[in-house]
Amino acid sequence: MENENIEIQPDRNPITPRTEEERNKLINRLKRIEGQIRGLQKMVEDDRYCVDVLVQISSVNSALKQVGFALLERHTRTCVSSAVQSGEGDEYIEELMKVMKQFSK
Amino acid sequence: MENENIEIQPDRNPITPRTEEERNKLINRLKRIEGQIRGLQKMVEDDRYCVDVLVQISSVNSALKQVGFALLERHTRTCVSSAVQSGEGDEYIEELMKVMKQFSK
Amino acid sequence: MENENIEIQPDRNPITPRTEEERNKLINRLKRIEGQIRGLQKMVEDDRYCVDVLVQISSVNSALKQVGFALLERHTRTCVSSAVQSGEGDEYIEELMKVMKQFSK
Amino acid sequence: MENENIEIQPDRNPITPRTEEERNKLINRLKRIEGQIRGLQKMVEDDRYCVDVLVQISSVNSALKQVGFALLERHTRTCVSSAVQSGEGDEYIEELMKVMKQFSK
Repeated sequence: MENENIEIQPDRNPITPRTEEERNKLINRLKRIEGQIRGLQKMVEDDRYCVDVLVQISSVNSALKQVGFALLERHTRTCVSSAVQSGEGDEYIEELMKVMKQFSK
Repeated sequence: MENENIEIQPDRNPITPRTEEERNKLINRLKRIEGQIRGLQKMVEDDRYCVDVLVQISSVNSALKQVGFALLERHTRTCVSSAVQSGEGDEYIEELMKVMKQFSK
Repeated sequence: MENENIEIQPDRNPITPRTEEERNKLINRLKRIEGQIRGLQKMVEDDRYCVDVLVQISSVNSALKQVGFALLERHTRTCVSSAVQSGEGDEYIEELMKVMKQFSK
Repeated sequence: MENENIEIQPDRNPITPRTEEERNKLINRLKRIEGQIRGLQKMVEDDRYCVDVLVQISSVNSALKQVGFALLERHTRTCVSSAVQSGEGDEYIEELMKVMKQFSK
């Protein structure tokens, strides 16, 4: 699949800012994932069986994808929908497709 | 795809123990990934644009997969090969296939 | 990743019907894929090397995903956008997310 | 993930030839998939709802992956194992890893 790069825009924010509750929820999920990554380091230090480490890596990947899908859904419901309603959907939909392709790799 | 569970075996080690160099290399890669996860938390705190966060999540997923493939290759070259050579390959190959399926989701 | 089933709706059509040109283009791509599948059958008949068959399967999978992404983009640009503009976006976005999750497996 | 090309070797066969039963089983699965592809063409001709077509594409992709995993398992059990036993495992394992990476995209 071709690699279409998406330019990072550090000064850009969601059209609808995330509420404090939304931010906290996301950060908590990411903290749990951070804990899982530290758990992986411990498994390597303990020279744990390869397959067990691999199963744990799969589980972290799956947790990260879930966070990604939650962000993607929120982004479509708010940013993309607002843009569509104000007649500027094209650019947002193009970007959405690029990020979906990258995500489904 | 059916979900074939792989049983975690906490007391099991690789047939050929990882060298200190191998362990350090893996741990360093996992520490960089841990740093990326903290970077993601910061992006959420700063209410950064959804697509930028998603691109970063894709990049962490890809880094984790690379670690996984390195482990998978090492596992095949050492543990699976030893088992095949001593005539006990079947069970190892079955396990390898299960973990690969889980990995390719 | 949980399996959220999407109900097939045989009597439903795209909000904006596909033009003849769009239909022909899609059908041509699917005919090429059908040819690739027959090529795979020939490879098996000729007892071709496993890895070569696998590479060809990957290539068909990739071609099918491209068709899927083309459909997904068209669906978002037309059906989902129309629904958002007429205030009925929620249901369409939920469905879009489900199909994307299924697609990124 | 980097794209490591695998060279197609048209004159190469599996170390252990496929039995007639194995060949027939594979060809039957591929014929069913060919039928599904024709079903997709019919869905497009009937201008069926985008999401329904996408669900069907996912299902074909999944069926193709299953065939791929069956081939991969057989390849590992026979070709790779033979090579490992005769001390020529390295090259086969490297090739196996490349094809696994391509497969997990």
